[in-house]
Amino acid sequence: MEKLEHIGVAVKNIEQANKLFAALLGTEHYKIEEVASEGVRTSFFELSGVKIELLEATREDSPIAKFIEKRGEGIHHLAFEVKNIEEGIKEYQNKGFQLINPVPKKGADNKRICFLHPKSTQGVLIELCEEIKDAS
Amino acid sequence: MEKLEHIGVAVKNIEQANKLFAALLGTEHYKIEEVASEGVRTSFFELSGVKIELLEATREDSPIAKFIEKRGEGIHHLAFEVKNIEEGIKEYQNKGFQLINPVPKKGADNKRICFLHPKSTQGVLIELCEEIKDAS
Repeated sequence: MEKLEHIGVAVKNIEQANKLFAALLGTEHYKIEEVASEGVRTSFFELSGVKIELLEATREDSPIAKFIEKRGEGIHHLAFEVKNIEEGIKEYQNKGFQLINPVPKKGADNKRICFLHPKSTQGVLIELCEEIKDAS
Repeated sequence: MEKLEHIGVAVKNIEQANKLFAALLGTEHYKIEEVASEGVRTSFFELSGVKIELLEATREDSPIAKFIEKRGEGIHHLAFEVKNIEEGIKEYQNKGFQLINPVPKKGADNKRICFLHPKSTQGVLIELCEEIKDAS
């Protein structure tokens, strides 16, 4: 993996959390994006090259709703950038890590993403993400 | 705050976790440090300027032992660098954040640290840290 791309934080109310994180980080969120397929609304902050992604569930069966129900609000995942996600998936499978989705899916912020299962990563949900390059 | 300094991860067994995180991050840990006052043994990894600090409890009443008992292994805190920790504490108190320790204490990695209570930060345990400058 290349670098830490973002830290995902599960929140109940994204408007309230945007205010709190703006006060905390000293900078405003720079975008809001809904990912309907994942049942989440996200907002992004940036501090010295690392992004913080707040995630609010948009429906009851969203993974974020389930996470909050079980563990409360808090840090949800760490996302690391890879150059090529298919190669990343192969590499981590070969190393014995368990993939939640071995086929990449579309995430927020123009990324293709997959998750390593926290059972195989000391309880830390890890996202691998590859930026989608414009075809143009 | 200046930047994300490190991400703290609570683990049961630091030797086992060191192997797993080396495989995950593609780099070995570069130091191990015990902080007796906090009841933790820590190890540090670095990837593109962000550190990952693994934390293992060295006694039963360590905050890390209590965290793992309650929530299992996983991400424990986010640490942000501040230039001056006393000023940081005042700033966040003025903004309405609750401090766990309003008097800085000595942490790992040559830092003075304090924590914001997760009740006031959407469930995210936030550490403020200032690097201790040599008196020489």
